[in-house]
Amino acid sequence: MTAAQRRWRLDLSYDGRGFHGFAAQPGTETVAGAIGDALALALRLDAAPVLTCAGRTDAGVHALGQVLHVDLPEPLFAEDRGPQGARLRRALNGLLAGRVAILSASEADARFDARFDATSRSYRYVLHESDTPSPLLDGLAWRVEPPLDLRAMAQAGYALLGEHDFRAFCRRPAGTDAATPILRRILDLSVAVADDSLSLAGTGRLVRLDVTAQAFCHQMVRSITATLVAVGQGRLSGADVVAHLRAATREGLPAPAPPEGLCLVQVAYG
Amino acid sequence: MTAAQRRWRLDLSYDGRGFHGFAAQPGTETVAGAIGDALALALRLDAAPVLTCAGRTDAGVHALGQVLHVDLPEPLFAEDRGPQGARLRRALNGLLAGRVAILSASEADARFDARFDATSRSYRYVLHESDTPSPLLDGLAWRVEPPLDLRAMAQAGYALLGEHDFRAFCRRPAGTDAATPILRRILDLSVAVADDSLSLAGTGRLVRLDVTAQAFCHQMVRSITATLVAVGQGRLSGADVVAHLRAATREGLPAPAPPEGLCLVQVAYG
Repeated sequence: MTAAQRRWRLDLSYDGRGFHGFAAQPGTETVAGAIGDALALALRLDAAPVLTCAGRTDAGVHALGQVLHVDLPEPLFAEDRGPQGARLRRALNGLLAGRVAILSASEADARFDARFDATSRSYRYVLHESDTPSPLLDGLAWRVEPPLDLRAMAQAGYALLGEHDFRAFCRRPAGTDAATPILRRILDLSVAVADDSLSLAGTGRLVRLDVTAQAFCHQMVRSITATLVAVGQGRLSGADVVAHLRAATREGLPAPAPPEGLCLVQVAYG
Repeated sequence: MTAAQRRWRLDLSYDGRGFHGFAAQPGTETVAGAIGDALALALRLDAAPVLTCAGRTDAGVHALGQVLHVDLPEPLFAEDRGPQGARLRRALNGLLAGRVAILSASEADARFDARFDATSRSYRYVLHESDTPSPLLDGLAWRVEPPLDLRAMAQAGYALLGEHDFRAFCRRPAGTDAATPILRRILDLSVAVADDSLSLAGTGRLVRLDVTAQAFCHQMVRSITATLVAVGQGRLSGADVVAHLRAATREGLPAPAPPEGLCLVQVAYG
């Protein structure tokens, strides 16, 4: 950060359908790309600034409470017309046209780091338990065949609470070998029927899986979701889940659940 | 209906975003077009059959409980493999790939008419009362500036209950003059905060307007919605609404609310 810059914190939501994930990639439409372009346009910067987010989301994954930090010139706007944060938020929301919503823009401590200061992330996965698709849930939920035994799912989920080597539930990070443990701590995991006040499901019911951890590895929530759905449908037992966790291998576990049911709901800081 | 045909009733839902409305139009993607094509393919018909629905929806308008009737050859399938209705439903859902969901397919009385036998239709309009857009509600709700006085909206809505000449709240049907009354009977109208169990709103709240009538004229729910929002925002009074209803003119009333917040929820018969 140069002397003429200040660190800003942005809280935002987006629909993952329109983007190839969060991280900026030249030539593809990403969340970071769209926000960077909007910042450059709103503040007349020569180039899009570097954005650091709390949790990088894959293509198709939504966010209700993503957080990022970015260093921006001081002052933001040449003329003094009201609070800078409110002006920045309005300008960005105008440019982003509803695809990304900036919920707040506030000046942060110069040392604030959206990624490393986060003490926990909460994700939600929405399941549509029905033998009939619901067009209004398309892109927002994963449809699974009924019946789902939610109690069995919750019990198997209970075994994942606390700190474990989650290699069985992660896509291995590039540059690591299969023997490297991937330690993560799950703080909370619940399975519950969600109220469907807008009747988006049509037939069947909505089930939500809420998981909070200090940090997640790649595809962890989607892998856990697919595994718990297999338990709910009777294809795996709770004991199988524990055995896989101990064996630290993905073999025999279902492929990760599709991205569209997943949403980064909240990020907590110290 | 020829001797070798039977009348079928289909109950269905769809996301209006992908379609230019319900009614079949050559060269454009419509709900009736998609279902007609799927029927022709599933049943090996020479041409798409004629579909008659309970309530034709405009482009962008959703349905959770649309009903239609269609005459189909008897038997539907050459080989006898289980209940014909269940097979038809599965075949159509496979072909429609989640864009339209056939909730049920059942043989109907030969005189059943999805349009003329319907005794009431229920529509819902979803408002997002917030100064910040919500990407996850894009295409599912109309965002309006807070604050909305819901009590004032409900009271103004009360004045619309019962039978009235709704010319002020309709797009005039082609071939009629401005002096022709458009009598409709509203059976129920309510305004309420909707539970947002999936937190789709992000900021602000969801408000739903539910209206049931024997029948509606074109753009009636969207016109009523825009008018009640104007009341909720203090731009019109309840007395203004009554005066407009009596004067039977659209002048001075806001343009209809956009289609994306509207959904045909239910059709009742006999």
